[in-house]
Amino acid sequence: MLSTRKTNWGRWGDDDELGALNLLTPDRVLAALRLPKSGKTYSLGIPIQRSGVPNLEYRGIPQRLTMMNHQDEAMARANGGAPGVGANEDQLVMPSHTSTHMDALCHVYSDNKIYNGFPADEVTPYSGAAKCSIANVGGITGRGVLIDVAASKGVSVLEPGYVITADDLRTALDAQGVELETGDLVLVRTGWLEDYLANQGEMMPQPGIGLEAAAFLAEKDVALVGADNAAIEPIPFDQNVYLGVHIILLVEHGIHLVEHLDLAELSADKCYEFLLTIGALKITGGTASPVSPVAIG
Amino acid sequence: MLSTRKTNWGRWGDDDELGALNLLTPDRVLAALRLPKSGKTYSLGIPIQRSGVPNLEYRGIPQRLTMMNHQDEAMARANGGAPGVGANEDQLVMPSHTSTHMDALCHVYSDNKIYNGFPADEVTPYSGAAKCSIANVGGITGRGVLIDVAASKGVSVLEPGYVITADDLRTALDAQGVELETGDLVLVRTGWLEDYLANQGEMMPQPGIGLEAAAFLAEKDVALVGADNAAIEPIPFDQNVYLGVHIILLVEHGIHLVEHLDLAELSADKCYEFLLTIGALKITGGTASPVSPVAIG
Amino acid sequence: MLSTRKTNWGRWGDDDELGALNLLTPDRVLAALRLPKSGKTYSLGIPIQRSGVPNLEYRGIPQRLTMMNHQDEAMARANGGAPGVGANEDQLVMPSHTSTHMDALCHVYSDNKIYNGFPADEVTPYSGAAKCSIANVGGITGRGVLIDVAASKGVSVLEPGYVITADDLRTALDAQGVELETGDLVLVRTGWLEDYLANQGEMMPQPGIGLEAAAFLAEKDVALVGADNAAIEPIPFDQNVYLGVHIILLVEHGIHLVEHLDLAELSADKCYEFLLTIGALKITGGTASPVSPVAIG
Amino acid sequence: MLSTRKTNWGRWGDDDELGALNLLTPDRVLAALRLPKSGKTYSLGIPIQRSGVPNLEYRGIPQRLTMMNHQDEAMARANGGAPGVGANEDQLVMPSHTSTHMDALCHVYSDNKIYNGFPADEVTPYSGAAKCSIANVGGITGRGVLIDVAASKGVSVLEPGYVITADDLRTALDAQGVELETGDLVLVRTGWLEDYLANQGEMMPQPGIGLEAAAFLAEKDVALVGADNAAIEPIPFDQNVYLGVHIILLVEHGIHLVEHLDLAELSADKCYEFLLTIGALKITGGTASPVSPVAIG
Repeated sequence: MLSTRKTNWGRWGDDDELGALNLLTPDRVLAALRLPKSGKTYSLGIPIQRSGVPNLEYRGIPQRLTMMNHQDEAMARANGGAPGVGANEDQLVMPSHTSTHMDALCHVYSDNKIYNGFPADEVTPYSGAAKCSIANVGGITGRGVLIDVAASKGVSVLEPGYVITADDLRTALDAQGVELETGDLVLVRTGWLEDYLANQGEMMPQPGIGLEAAAFLAEKDVALVGADNAAIEPIPFDQNVYLGVHIILLVEHGIHLVEHLDLAELSADKCYEFLLTIGALKITGGTASPVSPVAIG
Repeated sequence: MLSTRKTNWGRWGDDDELGALNLLTPDRVLAALRLPKSGKTYSLGIPIQRSGVPNLEYRGIPQRLTMMNHQDEAMARANGGAPGVGANEDQLVMPSHTSTHMDALCHVYSDNKIYNGFPADEVTPYSGAAKCSIANVGGITGRGVLIDVAASKGVSVLEPGYVITADDLRTALDAQGVELETGDLVLVRTGWLEDYLANQGEMMPQPGIGLEAAAFLAEKDVALVGADNAAIEPIPFDQNVYLGVHIILLVEHGIHLVEHLDLAELSADKCYEFLLTIGALKITGGTASPVSPVAIG
Repeated sequence: MLSTRKTNWGRWGDDDELGALNLLTPDRVLAALRLPKSGKTYSLGIPIQRSGVPNLEYRGIPQRLTMMNHQDEAMARANGGAPGVGANEDQLVMPSHTSTHMDALCHVYSDNKIYNGFPADEVTPYSGAAKCSIANVGGITGRGVLIDVAASKGVSVLEPGYVITADDLRTALDAQGVELETGDLVLVRTGWLEDYLANQGEMMPQPGIGLEAAAFLAEKDVALVGADNAAIEPIPFDQNVYLGVHIILLVEHGIHLVEHLDLAELSADKCYEFLLTIGALKITGGTASPVSPVAIG
Repeated sequence: MLSTRKTNWGRWGDDDELGALNLLTPDRVLAALRLPKSGKTYSLGIPIQRSGVPNLEYRGIPQRLTMMNHQDEAMARANGGAPGVGANEDQLVMPSHTSTHMDALCHVYSDNKIYNGFPADEVTPYSGAAKCSIANVGGITGRGVLIDVAASKGVSVLEPGYVITADDLRTALDAQGVELETGDLVLVRTGWLEDYLANQGEMMPQPGIGLEAAAFLAEKDVALVGADNAAIEPIPFDQNVYLGVHIILLVEHGIHLVEHLDLAELSADKCYEFLLTIGALKITGGTASPVSPVAIG
């Protein structure tokens, strides 16, 4: 086990597939509704497009393809459409782990097991994940907390490959005057995404939270961790542990992850506490879902 | 023009691409945050899968394909992964107008124009919609109102092809003790989806709101209209006007539409007013986005 | 083992991934080149399109999507294109076992083994088949022989579900005055495809060769078996043996299969012997390839 | 018009969609059958895979995805399969102009017209090309001629961006002792593909035939031109005429093109004349087809 704390396996029952999302009780939801002050809406998703955004080559680029437009108006006409009336429709072809997306608890396995001890060999080509698929998540709402590590360090972006420590998180929280609470949806800002979008630089290396920082968040009993980078964790991996932070958070603690979040506007507004809502698509058997999280400040 | 009311073209400027979503002001958002009483979270999206859900044949079925699983663990090993550690990933291939989805304002055109008078011929294969694409939407939050027409009529599902009238909407609202307000996100329940899912029946015909009911909602200055059926409007179309309700709401009034909503649980709980959040994926040039709307009751 | 004959496992070495295609020696190819008399070219592939052709629902329909057309001419202009100059390009999304296609030897397994005893669990999501993928095939040429069972029986199409016997094949060959030779590429006509295309009927049941007829072809040492139906074998399966003919031919004898062949014109011309060329796409790890076989009569 | 010769528009009728493939008469096919001496089969297609082969980023990489394997054996079991019996199947997602492919005559337009004067605006998203789609081609067979320009110049690969002249073609043909004939399927070898595959270098610049060489081949009344590079023509384009060679051959003369051919083995064997068969998939409305050409030497 990578973390020092006991894991969450069995904590919500041997059949549990939700993990730390169980912490999002109605009471906590109601409390989160009282946080917003400005009523301003923040969209935290990035554009889904072929280029200009972080796309990893081995997965292929996401493609929106026009399936039908005004040139196909004969189809509308054949169904009784008046001249000049028609519909535009797309097809989407995209990796589920591209763009802003939420990892399902089945995404990563360790010791041949996913969260809660379910076997790793139950993700099959046709049916997908038998357990802990993204279809279990649906919509979630709770208290969102931004930990703006880049701002706390007074830089626009952390160094490539920088390993964020638990102390870094604590220092940033202190500077922000915010305390973590059970069931928080924690979003960590490294500045990486803004830098990438502005400069169209390299995907790797990337800053991210290290193993110790992951264990710290797990100890705090947060419900979800997000970040503006590609993998929450740094690349190269902290201490060279392949997917180490995924293993601590996703596998051991059942904490869902959201990657490639656009946190620029929250940071600019110094909006550190907010209502956060994420609607994961109920992709049957899915290992992730593209998401468009919504914060209300 | 199909509606009796003047349209919303130009109302928010000649360059406007948001339409009635402009009505979601911070004040209205803050007011909506005060609606929830139970703190219960409702997921209004339906599963995305190859069968068992409403998929139209000409668009093809949505497919989640496993791109990588434990059988490909050699890839993880080559990157330093320990034995028994790996990742599961998918590819998605799906029509954007399938499953629970939000229509962009560019989705339908009439008289060769989309909302706000933009020309209909600016949706191109590679780039998609130049104006009013779904990428403009991002996340929205507001007061959700369920109009449970099926319940109001004491049936589990309206007759196939039934045309919902403005009176039907008024009667249901009265029975619920709810009044429409400017900027509401209105969800109409016909019972069709529940019936389809339970009985795996035919896609057509379907009940839906008629032209008059659409004009009524537009007059009420709602910000969005959703329903549990495939097209908001009935199929066959009211008065045989091809896409008539889409034309009134989407084209003439800039009112976004959300289709295939799962409203069963809201109906069962008689939850008629709620906080509603919808995060549309920022698909550049997209004519729609699959969504997983979240209601808090 | 389903066939009475010893299998071809090991016949061409323990590492062999080509199976009976090994029979296509240069001498046999040269002999086949001397068969054509008219010089007429026959295209045996069927159209690849969303509807009107045999597509199985669980695989999804094949889609050709326009990725770029004259509406995107700005892209050409940006690269120096003159006004009025541009390119049209597609994206293809399709199951590999749809339309006219060749099954790779890895397509079916029995007793957890594919042809030549390779283990069945070596087809992985990301990499595909480690052994006997369609990429091994490339192009093949040889003596094509049509066995027109429907014509031999004086019908346009065999009964749905009809099980073609070895005697049926022998009778048809006799009527045609043709003898099978080692290394032949044998195409069996049931009339099913023509009937389906003409009447847009049901996919199932289908006529096809039974277990005994498959064993007969294997005994004859043919190099490949094709047919105008969906699965070479009848559906429902002969003697209810699931994929029984696939097991005899593909698994036990390493005989590649080609399905959904358009044999109408060869039949009309009573062209029973011909030069047959099939170019399988070298899809790395692929379990099949769409093909467009070419016969010269 | 870019070429000096009159074009082929109208030559085979105002409705013609085949262009120079009309030259492949039965007599020429029969003559081509007499060319092979060794009976050796050459596969000229390259592998279709995500990396290691020439893929252009804006089109996305081709993907073979495992739709079903032994892990989904429950599906086979539900249909009566015995334990240990099952099927492996793929889905393909790929650009039609990637890998070894044949351009349809509708692929490129100039002066807003494709071959034979058909309007350029008849390629629509849903239906594809109304005229001159790849579906018209099917299978073709004829006399293949390799013009090994790289060998003729004594190099393994021509310089990046090198513009092959008509003289280069004539010199190579003379050195080979081969004369072009009407209806030939001409394959030009630059060495580029072998160099790319061996060194995984840059896609651009590339050597290719220039405008004058294209006009020379058109004058010779060839039926098809192929090459081992990405676009037949050099990149950057000869005389900076965007798609100039495509315009001369494809648009003006109705000469189909085949790109990314693997000509290494033909070159090594000094096999300059051969039987060449190409089966284009009948993709309805398609602007190209992946192909796996077969040469018999």
